[in-house]
Amino acid sequence: MGNSWGTIFRIATFGESHGKAIGVVIDGCPPNLPFDLDFIQNEMNRRKPGQSAIVTQRKENDQIEVLSGVWQGKTTGTPIALMLWNEDAKSQDYSHISHSFRPSHADYTYFAKYQQHYDYRGGGRSSARETAARVAAGAVAKLILQKLGTSVIAYTSQIGDIAIKEAFPKNMRTETIESNIVRCPEADKAEAMVQLIKEVRKEGDSIGGVVNCIIQNTPVGLGEPIFDKLHAELGKAMLSINAVKGFEYGSGFGGVSMRGSAHNDLFYREGEKVKTHTNYSGGIQGGISNGEDIYFRVAFKPVATLMQSQTSIDQEGNPTEIKGKGRHDPCVVPRAVPIVEAMAALVLVDFYLLQLRNSTDLFTAS
Amino acid sequence: MGNSWGTIFRIATFGESHGKAIGVVIDGCPPNLPFDLDFIQNEMNRRKPGQSAIVTQRKENDQIEVLSGVWQGKTTGTPIALMLWNEDAKSQDYSHISHSFRPSHADYTYFAKYQQHYDYRGGGRSSARETAARVAAGAVAKLILQKLGTSVIAYTSQIGDIAIKEAFPKNMRTETIESNIVRCPEADKAEAMVQLIKEVRKEGDSIGGVVNCIIQNTPVGLGEPIFDKLHAELGKAMLSINAVKGFEYGSGFGGVSMRGSAHNDLFYREGEKVKTHTNYSGGIQGGISNGEDIYFRVAFKPVATLMQSQTSIDQEGNPTEIKGKGRHDPCVVPRAVPIVEAMAALVLVDFYLLQLRNSTDLFTAS
Amino acid sequence: MGNSWGTIFRIATFGESHGKAIGVVIDGCPPNLPFDLDFIQNEMNRRKPGQSAIVTQRKENDQIEVLSGVWQGKTTGTPIALMLWNEDAKSQDYSHISHSFRPSHADYTYFAKYQQHYDYRGGGRSSARETAARVAAGAVAKLILQKLGTSVIAYTSQIGDIAIKEAFPKNMRTETIESNIVRCPEADKAEAMVQLIKEVRKEGDSIGGVVNCIIQNTPVGLGEPIFDKLHAELGKAMLSINAVKGFEYGSGFGGVSMRGSAHNDLFYREGEKVKTHTNYSGGIQGGISNGEDIYFRVAFKPVATLMQSQTSIDQEGNPTEIKGKGRHDPCVVPRAVPIVEAMAALVLVDFYLLQLRNSTDLFTAS
Amino acid sequence: MGNSWGTIFRIATFGESHGKAIGVVIDGCPPNLPFDLDFIQNEMNRRKPGQSAIVTQRKENDQIEVLSGVWQGKTTGTPIALMLWNEDAKSQDYSHISHSFRPSHADYTYFAKYQQHYDYRGGGRSSARETAARVAAGAVAKLILQKLGTSVIAYTSQIGDIAIKEAFPKNMRTETIESNIVRCPEADKAEAMVQLIKEVRKEGDSIGGVVNCIIQNTPVGLGEPIFDKLHAELGKAMLSINAVKGFEYGSGFGGVSMRGSAHNDLFYREGEKVKTHTNYSGGIQGGISNGEDIYFRVAFKPVATLMQSQTSIDQEGNPTEIKGKGRHDPCVVPRAVPIVEAMAALVLVDFYLLQLRNSTDLFTAS
Repeated sequence: MGNSWGTIFRIATFGESHGKAIGVVIDGCPPNLPFDLDFIQNEMNRRKPGQSAIVTQRKENDQIEVLSGVWQGKTTGTPIALMLWNEDAKSQDYSHISHSFRPSHADYTYFAKYQQHYDYRGGGRSSARETAARVAAGAVAKLILQKLGTSVIAYTSQIGDIAIKEAFPKNMRTETIESNIVRCPEADKAEAMVQLIKEVRKEGDSIGGVVNCIIQNTPVGLGEPIFDKLHAELGKAMLSINAVKGFEYGSGFGGVSMRGSAHNDLFYREGEKVKTHTNYSGGIQGGISNGEDIYFRVAFKPVATLMQSQTSIDQEGNPTEIKGKGRHDPCVVPRAVPIVEAMAALVLVDFYLLQLRNSTDLFTAS
Repeated sequence: MGNSWGTIFRIATFGESHGKAIGVVIDGCPPNLPFDLDFIQNEMNRRKPGQSAIVTQRKENDQIEVLSGVWQGKTTGTPIALMLWNEDAKSQDYSHISHSFRPSHADYTYFAKYQQHYDYRGGGRSSARETAARVAAGAVAKLILQKLGTSVIAYTSQIGDIAIKEAFPKNMRTETIESNIVRCPEADKAEAMVQLIKEVRKEGDSIGGVVNCIIQNTPVGLGEPIFDKLHAELGKAMLSINAVKGFEYGSGFGGVSMRGSAHNDLFYREGEKVKTHTNYSGGIQGGISNGEDIYFRVAFKPVATLMQSQTSIDQEGNPTEIKGKGRHDPCVVPRAVPIVEAMAALVLVDFYLLQLRNSTDLFTAS
Repeated sequence: MGNSWGTIFRIATFGESHGKAIGVVIDGCPPNLPFDLDFIQNEMNRRKPGQSAIVTQRKENDQIEVLSGVWQGKTTGTPIALMLWNEDAKSQDYSHISHSFRPSHADYTYFAKYQQHYDYRGGGRSSARETAARVAAGAVAKLILQKLGTSVIAYTSQIGDIAIKEAFPKNMRTETIESNIVRCPEADKAEAMVQLIKEVRKEGDSIGGVVNCIIQNTPVGLGEPIFDKLHAELGKAMLSINAVKGFEYGSGFGGVSMRGSAHNDLFYREGEKVKTHTNYSGGIQGGISNGEDIYFRVAFKPVATLMQSQTSIDQEGNPTEIKGKGRHDPCVVPRAVPIVEAMAALVLVDFYLLQLRNSTDLFTAS
Repeated sequence: MGNSWGTIFRIATFGESHGKAIGVVIDGCPPNLPFDLDFIQNEMNRRKPGQSAIVTQRKENDQIEVLSGVWQGKTTGTPIALMLWNEDAKSQDYSHISHSFRPSHADYTYFAKYQQHYDYRGGGRSSARETAARVAAGAVAKLILQKLGTSVIAYTSQIGDIAIKEAFPKNMRTETIESNIVRCPEADKAEAMVQLIKEVRKEGDSIGGVVNCIIQNTPVGLGEPIFDKLHAELGKAMLSINAVKGFEYGSGFGGVSMRGSAHNDLFYREGEKVKTHTNYSGGIQGGISNGEDIYFRVAFKPVATLMQSQTSIDQEGNPTEIKGKGRHDPCVVPRAVPIVEAMAALVLVDFYLLQLRNSTDLFTAS
């Protein structure tokens, strides 16, 4: 339970950090979509470990293997199975936690939920390595969004206390984000963020941060009230990513102290389009996209694995000490950027396909 | 689509603000649950309009009618249909918006999503009146939680800029919350909040706020990673409530600037229980409850309907002016408190029933 | 659990035979569908009790009450709640089974499944009265099928040993079916069937039969392999109807003794259409409609309630005698005809809406 | 869409006949189940091609590769991914159908459903090779059923016109079924069936048959009325198997001509158990298991691929001739036996896990 996402464009993921492989099965992808494997692999590379000096040095090629659903370079509408082999797992680095619970990890809760039987190596299924499968599926979703002209761009907006000046800049471009290893759109802040992360790492410590995301040119009408509102599904998607502690869209928490007279987004017409003067709604009204930019923020906690000793208990409840071994991210945020984009893309594509039922003009003539 | 919630304990809601009735069908409720109708009605009363001087004066009794699923005072395991008749709808107050889009409401997006055909009266399906059905279903869920010993208590923590001092006090009790009409646990703040809401109303304006929620004594092991993590589902549940703009749990957005060494919650044993010294995790690790208090915050924007004129456009795109008529809340927060509780209860009960599959000791003996 | 049907066009039903009401909530119906209430009521009348001399004499008007989802005579895309009040329940006729299990009814299994707590009156939720909600929802589905030009016609093909000569006649018309109270297309057989049912009733006994169904002009491409094949979903839909014991489509059980060389349906082109010379496939190949007539047969067992005494046991396991009281059908088949049509319509419409994802030409240009 | 099965014990399958691999991801399997790989592999072997003289001679080892979800020989509760590599696909045998539609195959309907883009090699996704993934998942389900003491045994009851004498013998044992290559419990009939299949093959033709199935010692209470009745779900499961044309359980089509007085199964008590004197109900009443043997029959059509020429059309509608090449089954029935068992096992386990919600005695004390 819990390893699937979506209604029509539905994915099921599998795999543990130190198992043989991780992967994803995508059901419901429309046929005839050109399957741009280079693009998909590039998305994988944006997430993969070992890509820069500020992330974990585990070496995984994360080379996508396509097992089904693609024929002569295009999707067939049947399930697309994508797989990554685990190649650089070093399970010996985890023998010390085979009977102990790492603080603020999922060791204890998996132990309790699954009858005391779980694969502890690298966190097993609870490892962020699982997100590779999301990025693979999200890349396929992005291929569809490209056809719709919709872009999803995420970026690092804050590391520790260092935050960018303009939270949601106009004309955000992927090139800007990718121009530095922390994926921050403001060069000076990027530099400071990298320094902070290096510093924190040197201390054997870790730090959190915030990823912002802008979605442009979303078709009007996506999202399914009442319960499956567009922002509710985006929120769940983001909160399902490892280490996420909060989500806000549009005016967010800041909007609570505004008056309605200032907060309301007034409509006007621009050519054939309905537009709003302001966009505190974050492109979503009543849970449905209104065509304006969708934007939101995602909070990530500091990584739980530390290169310093902390007290804990073992499975019998005895006190113990735990200190991280092996290779770890001192901050997940830079690698989380493509994950945020992937999850957002999955949400949008599913809602796009669901909305087709209302787009038919079957009944309008009558 | 979008009008259902849950997997085992699954609800489907229906009804418009000015239609005949609103209601909910609950499928999957276990049998033999004593159906405490007084308790359920009391929950309805906590949400209903006209209950105090700071909420809308629409007069609805919101009297629950039980159509099925209950026999001799106890549930039978078959669908429980609960209904409320709409009694005080004044549709004439909405004729001015029959062809115009109210700012920051769902009029335009419903118009666009549903082929230009929607019930505009009182916002139709997008009205917060729909949440009455959630509270009814949530009350049934709460009856189950009572058996588990789990309590869900929400309260107003902020109105505009007025915030309580202690965000998550220990020993929160429903009586405290219900002791004032704004449902705030700190008496002096409550008084100030009430004044602010009255002031804002007098100006024909509106204001936002924050609802906090504490869940105590949750069974360990609830939540379904990967995608259906407990906090992800709670987040979606909250974000699906009208006017919500943000959700954070545990350390939330504040946690991003902490170091991991400070943020990690260290385990210790207390009797037979596994406990943590701090609780930045908010009672959830790896998406699964760990037995500590679950706590989170929900941001509500200022109400969009104002008793002052604002510019907008009509369905043809022509400029127009819109000013609220009829009876409206200047601030949704006080009435949102039982809604937050209801949605949290629905999430918990569904996860509890799903977790039963892992609780069997069918395989442990081998 | 188990009280919902469909993925996009999704219904949830509720209600017991002797409760206040029964009803259905339809989610996912496209907007702008003219809501022909007369047509829907007429479908209800075809199923309702007391309609003729060979069915139960319980008097229910089965008048549809529309609670939501319809505005100015057309659907809005929001949930459509339809309800029927129970008006002629005579619960005193069931006091003798309050602690005993009627043979071949669901009394014992409900007792066992739902912790010994169930509404025994008229069979409670297990009563065929529940199918009224299906017919209501199916009538809405039929309104959509009418727009597609697809017709679903069911009819009685066998009662006891009396079977029609031509199992699947060409040019079947609803008027023919409705020209006699047993709903059989062959007048002489109809007469014999009516006599048989009357005879059986006089003996205090009951009899089974078969309903055949023909679906004409189905769009090509409906059905979702692998598991949700069109005929698999039709089969489940039929088997979910009370008293059904078997389902076959196309060549059915008779096809097993044919050679492939005779059974294969050879393709040819007729104008722009792909046609087959024979139709042993029953209009479905690989689980997907191919445009030929879909046809299938549904077996109904003899009614379990008898006006004669039979041995049984009570809840404590003591021997007892049970004899039906009140008003019952000696044969369910005539009233089952509109139920079979309703379930088929629900299946088709849901698959039609799901198939829209593949109909987009978004990707074909590339 | 359509490639998943189940609610709690949920599988998603993937793969084409001539693609790289086929496989299945199982979500929701309880933890701590001893993962008997030998048993699973043995089930695969019962289905695999090339196992005897009367089936296709394609040589696939169908060796299961476990990618995730199993740790130290036991399940962990996380997704179990099982995979088979395709090793002996001979795609050149299919070049003649790259633009033509084989009669009574899914070529045309896949062409029509999926925008004219499909993997034609070996039927692609529509190939019965897909059922290997079902057998793998079903074997895991069977491991759970073993713990429950429930047995599922299918067997060949008819090939062409040759049928066994006793449709549902008592004390059926797997050893009996497996004692001959056609998997028929009556030795003399088995011999005749084998001869018939060989004869049909020699003629380049094919033949259908029937598989019967008996499920013993099912827990009372499985199945979810209204729509997800146990026999409805079993029926859908069977009808989803390639080449199936019909399903009946208990008295089936034969029951329609019986009188209720003969058909009713009278209850009696045997020790602590509730039993019935007859079992026309087939172990299911009101859609819920009653503890008696569940038994049903599944009709398979003759294989569509023939070693003789038949007329057809190509993608442009031009007449053409098609004759099977390569290696094919003249009759699917012997290999279908383990597939029927697998699907039945999947249905039962899912219902077992769903029923746990009602088994709790949480509310009974009150």
